[in-house]
Amino acid sequence: MMMLDDEVKQRAIMVSEAIEDMLPIVHPKGLYEASRHLVDAGGKRLRPGMLLMATEAVGGDPRAAIPAAVSIELVHNFTLIHDDIMDNAETRRGRPAVHVKWDESGAILAGDTLYSKAFEIIATTESDPANIVAAMDMLAKTCAAICEGQWLDLEFEKRGQVSEDEYLEMVEKKTGVLYGAAAWVGAKLVGASEDELRGLEEFGRLVGMGFQIEDDVLDLTAPMEVLGKPRGGDLAEGKKTLIMIHAMDHGVELEIFGKKNATQEEIEAALDTLQNSGSIEYAKTKATTLVEQGKDALKVLEDSPAKTLLLELADYMIDRSY
Amino acid sequence: MMMLDDEVKQRAIMVSEAIEDMLPIVHPKGLYEASRHLVDAGGKRLRPGMLLMATEAVGGDPRAAIPAAVSIELVHNFTLIHDDIMDNAETRRGRPAVHVKWDESGAILAGDTLYSKAFEIIATTESDPANIVAAMDMLAKTCAAICEGQWLDLEFEKRGQVSEDEYLEMVEKKTGVLYGAAAWVGAKLVGASEDELRGLEEFGRLVGMGFQIEDDVLDLTAPMEVLGKPRGGDLAEGKKTLIMIHAMDHGVELEIFGKKNATQEEIEAALDTLQNSGSIEYAKTKATTLVEQGKDALKVLEDSPAKTLLLELADYMIDRSY
Repeated sequence: MMMLDDEVKQRAIMVSEAIEDMLPIVHPKGLYEASRHLVDAGGKRLRPGMLLMATEAVGGDPRAAIPAAVSIELVHNFTLIHDDIMDNAETRRGRPAVHVKWDESGAILAGDTLYSKAFEIIATTESDPANIVAAMDMLAKTCAAICEGQWLDLEFEKRGQVSEDEYLEMVEKKTGVLYGAAAWVGAKLVGASEDELRGLEEFGRLVGMGFQIEDDVLDLTAPMEVLGKPRGGDLAEGKKTLIMIHAMDHGVELEIFGKKNATQEEIEAALDTLQNSGSIEYAKTKATTLVEQGKDALKVLEDSPAKTLLLELADYMIDRSY
Repeated sequence: MMMLDDEVKQRAIMVSEAIEDMLPIVHPKGLYEASRHLVDAGGKRLRPGMLLMATEAVGGDPRAAIPAAVSIELVHNFTLIHDDIMDNAETRRGRPAVHVKWDESGAILAGDTLYSKAFEIIATTESDPANIVAAMDMLAKTCAAICEGQWLDLEFEKRGQVSEDEYLEMVEKKTGVLYGAAAWVGAKLVGASEDELRGLEEFGRLVGMGFQIEDDVLDLTAPMEVLGKPRGGDLAEGKKTLIMIHAMDHGVELEIFGKKNATQEEIEAALDTLQNSGSIEYAKTKATTLVEQGKDALKVLEDSPAKTLLLELADYMIDRSY
């Protein structure tokens, strides 16, 4: 795992350097500073990392895919900036959210600018133009799906009941498809076969879904030192995660669900209930199953160091203890 | 002029029908209804109309450019939806703004969805892939410039002084470049020469700027029946238009400038002052000059009925009495 960590970091550095180069702070400076604010806060850059590994896993030169990797990272940040407005989020990656540091108008424009630059940057790829059109089309379809996912997420908040299938659709669209697109685009730009592309897209999408479900599990189970906040916040917020959907489907009633002023003691008691009902275990198993299915989809690829990295990355994404 | 009107209408109908087909209301319905709300309210569809005329003016088949025409119209609507949030606009094209009929989150997502669909739809063009990449790149660069223009516009509101050059840059980015892109993309997708492309881009950009400046003039001069609201609203709002910049540069002081509760009588008196200082005439002349310069840039094109239409469209855009 030490090795994987280094491989992820090395690619994150490449992507950060390329961002510096491809998204300079030009006139009007304020707009580009707002656009770079969240991007520069870093993060693990897992999506562009996966993209570059996918390029290598089909025998391509990852340097050719750097603009695409930057583009995927910018799309991710664009969606975060707009989501933070909608969710009234105060902070992100330890920094004030863009709409807090600037204002809502600034955050809308910063997001729109990142989205524009994502297309502009991927268009500079040196590849067969037909592959570039396909990659840009994939990016556009993916962003439309992300909007659908966020729309569903907001809609679910207003509803009493959400089914597991509906939840999975939302997670697939909000998180899965961008990982799927990352793996697909990285391979497409270096001319991968249809089989390879299908396998990689499925890999990214399923692993991304597992990652998101694991995230919901961690919110309920990880210690404060790891989360940076007391666990169980999703319960008080009334977030309809897979864990809560399982619990509700099994007749578990949590009085403090959606009760914003619940005490940490009440939350801990509710967490015990969710442990006993098997709801947390259920979500954990679902996350693992999705990741295993995703890894399975890589069977179409020949063995290579990059393929091994992708498989390790998949495990890492649900083994995170942060 | 009757003929031009028919030509514009005919293309608007083609574009509206294509939108129906290319942007169907699918799951999740609410998102696509919000995305279509403003698009369906119509308007003259001048941008896609110009795009289709440009295709014809370089000898291409406009049917090949229909997806691109739809794409330009969706980009335009995406920017309007987001602008209306930022400007707290209540209505648009006689309908409640998207953020009023839904909410801000819905309007952010509807805009993002239209932007995504614009790229998805233009990618379906049947053309040389290298031309499609170039067109998508132009679209992306144009949207980044529109964001810059809107950023500048918001920044100018907070400032005391704005120079004419700054104002012209803002108008070029907010309005000019999208017309420039429309004319350029329509020609590029059917393989126009570099000279033709340069001329068409310049034509669209300058004519678009003239159109916007004329819009500011109309706000101050058109009768209520035409505007649908009492004239001079920009004065009470304190909008730094070219007219006001000229007036301020010439030492004209308007007490009611930025005074939201100004009476119509006070506004009319201020309008007299702006007539006497030559500020309104100055802006009118600037609009006309820009349009003439734009028309001049079409010299590179061979004469054709479509070129004549473009020239007539340019005049029409500043002769509007609505």
